Amino acid sequence: MTGGVGFGVFSVGGDSPRVGFRVGHDVLDLAAHGLGQVFAAPTLNPFLALGRTSWEDTIARIDELVRAGADLVPLEDADLGLPFTVGDYVDFYSSLEHATNLGRLFRPDAEPLLPNWRHLPVGYHGRAGTVVVSGTPIVRPCGQAKLPTEDVPRFGPSRRLDIELEIGFVVGVGSRLGEPVSTAAFRDHVFGVVLVNDWSARDIQAWEYQPLGPFLGKSFATSVGAWVTPLALLEDRFVPAPRQDPEPLPYLLSEGDWALDIELEVELGGTVVSRTNARGLYWTMPQQLAHATVNGASIATGDLFASGTISGPEHGSEGSLIELTRNGEHPIGLANGSTRAFLEDDDEVVLRGRAGELELAEVRGVVVPARR
Amino acid sequence: MTGGVGFGVFSVGGDSPRVGFRVGHDVLDLAAHGLGQVFAAPTLNPFLALGRTSWEDTIARIDELVRAGADLVPLEDADLGLPFTVGDYVDFYSSLEHATNLGRLFRPDAEPLLPNWRHLPVGYHGRAGTVVVSGTPIVRPCGQAKLPTEDVPRFGPSRRLDIELEIGFVVGVGSRLGEPVSTAAFRDHVFGVVLVNDWSARDIQAWEYQPLGPFLGKSFATSVGAWVTPLALLEDRFVPAPRQDPEPLPYLLSEGDWALDIELEVELGGTVVSRTNARGLYWTMPQQLAHATVNGASIATGDLFASGTISGPEHGSEGSLIELTRNGEHPIGLANGSTRAFLEDDDEVVLRGRAGELELAEVRGVVVPARR
Repeated sequence: MTGGVGFGVFSVGGDSPRVGFRVGHDVLDLAAHGLGQVFAAPTLNPFLALGRTSWEDTIARIDELVRAGADLVPLEDADLGLPFTVGDYVDFYSSLEHATNLGRLFRPDAEPLLPNWRHLPVGYHGRAGTVVVSGTPIVRPCGQAKLPTEDVPRFGPSRRLDIELEIGFVVGVGSRLGEPVSTAAFRDHVFGVVLVNDWSARDIQAWEYQPLGPFLGKSFATSVGAWVTPLALLEDRFVPAPRQDPEPLPYLLSEGDWALDIELEVELGGTVVSRTNARGLYWTMPQQLAHATVNGASIATGDLFASGTISGPEHGSEGSLIELTRNGEHPIGLANGSTRAFLEDDDEVVLRGRAGELELAEVRGVVVPARR
Repeated sequence: MTGGVGFGVFSVGGDSPRVGFRVGHDVLDLAAHGLGQVFAAPTLNPFLALGRTSWEDTIARIDELVRAGADLVPLEDADLGLPFTVGDYVDFYSSLEHATNLGRLFRPDAEPLLPNWRHLPVGYHGRAGTVVVSGTPIVRPCGQAKLPTEDVPRFGPSRRLDIELEIGFVVGVGSRLGEPVSTAAFRDHVFGVVLVNDWSARDIQAWEYQPLGPFLGKSFATSVGAWVTPLALLEDRFVPAPRQDPEPLPYLLSEGDWALDIELEVELGGTVVSRTNARGLYWTMPQQLAHATVNGASIATGDLFASGTISGPEHGSEGSLIELTRNGEHPIGLANGSTRAFLEDDDEVVLRGRAGELELAEVRGVVVPARR
């Protein structure tokens, strides 16, 4: 297969949302082609819960159908929904470059990388109920913020609205409470990946995040692609991850190559402002899942685990504006001649990912003015 | 009504789980008494989504049925399930005494209360998928921990397993993305309350929590009572909250009295080790909900918002062992002659709440050994 591929939820002309498989510029209606009633659901979750053998059998049947010239729905006729019902949403912080950049900005007087960072994939829970599908307008959030020079916080629309370029994995098969999921069991539980834009209000986040972490600075919206790309279609994109020093504890070790060679880009207002690659992430997906469950926490169908912002080492490869513009102090130029420190109303952001011949579904969002 | 009351999910002898109303030592089977098919569901959520008028009508009909001597199921014959399917789980940090105590322990060289604490109800997202019903055994979590005196983290069972005495509110009617829920709209969205034990592994938490907040130190389990007490039955328990200084921003102001006069106790190994009252919480429930949504984040049926640990000002009124034992340095004595710094295997913890003539459902849990 080539071009845009993945499983998603679509409807045509207001009919019932159902599961489809995207094939480039078209969609294969899976229930209509006899692949099973599980695909008549308005969410991928029942299919995700079936497990790896069913996922692989389905992909093989789709391949046969497409090769045999099955009828397809033009993508432009399809209305796309959130592809899966999100269980829990966890966001990691797995890019060494991003964690270092943000440490410098948020804690200028301290070591940028905290002592725990190289020992465990730092993460936290985000708001699952505000994960939205690509194309959903993003209302500029209001909240409290306080500059270091101010005595008391102000309330108003965020003035430092930002993006975060991320990739997330989606759980198919859940686990039992009390039983960790080892790195070796990753492929039995995880179905596929989506691009993620973890929209962030930096001014709200800076004032609220001590000591319990980000809350309202992130919880207003998180956008995901409309099509989930199964791991089974990304087999040839797994490459060695960066060397880890010190060696992690045994529960974080894994066999094989687990970095994903996916080229990424961020477009803002029609201009590509960042290019990077997911393979540079320090912590791998199996390590993230093993860590998140090593305390016995269970996972469930539809859980989303995102990487955290993906930033590369060079300028122009950072996955957020706060990094690209050095805390807003060095605005970036757009092709239309304007500049941006942070997002302005009506700005459109598009995240794209390419894995060789395949494309991950883009994540698109327009900023709309705050409601007051 | 008097004694234990609330809506929950029960089954008898392995039959289908369904919604019941607890009346002291008995349960009223609501679907069987013709209150509607919504009560035949194995979760409260469909009923919660109906809204305030339906909630009040249902309570009025239950009252009639009970007075008329309707058949009841003995509580001892009922197997109890998780009463509602948890959407998102948010945990606040709303006790001034608890935040001050923990600030002293976790950041001994700094002001215990951070600058934002009196301006906003600090909170974060917890793991919704590991919220369990009272009675579920709690497997001691494993994880990374590092003492200040150690060079590298160790992996193993938590040695500082703790409880947190909390009260949580349960959302009935959701809201739309982008539209804040004002303090005045609280009663239109929130159905009722449960006691919550937010089990915490202090050693795991201390090593992981910078800079994104608690994660594995909390995510292994959170226990809630089996019966949700509707706000409508707590009308006479609302009392003035503590005075707030400085006055919060306008979006956090509300009319009326919003502290809940509920006497609370923590029993450990048969000994009551703490007594306090929820009315001392600094931030009220409407303030918590208004804050959590002021950025436009939507809420959904089944969302759980917990108070954070409830601690009073006196010794013996703290809602966690880390506070009661001063970081484990002053173990507390139990009636059987043993002492506890933190929880040991086989320890049983029971949280209880009394609101005048009514009891909130207890939250019970036994610690079982780590699986290695």
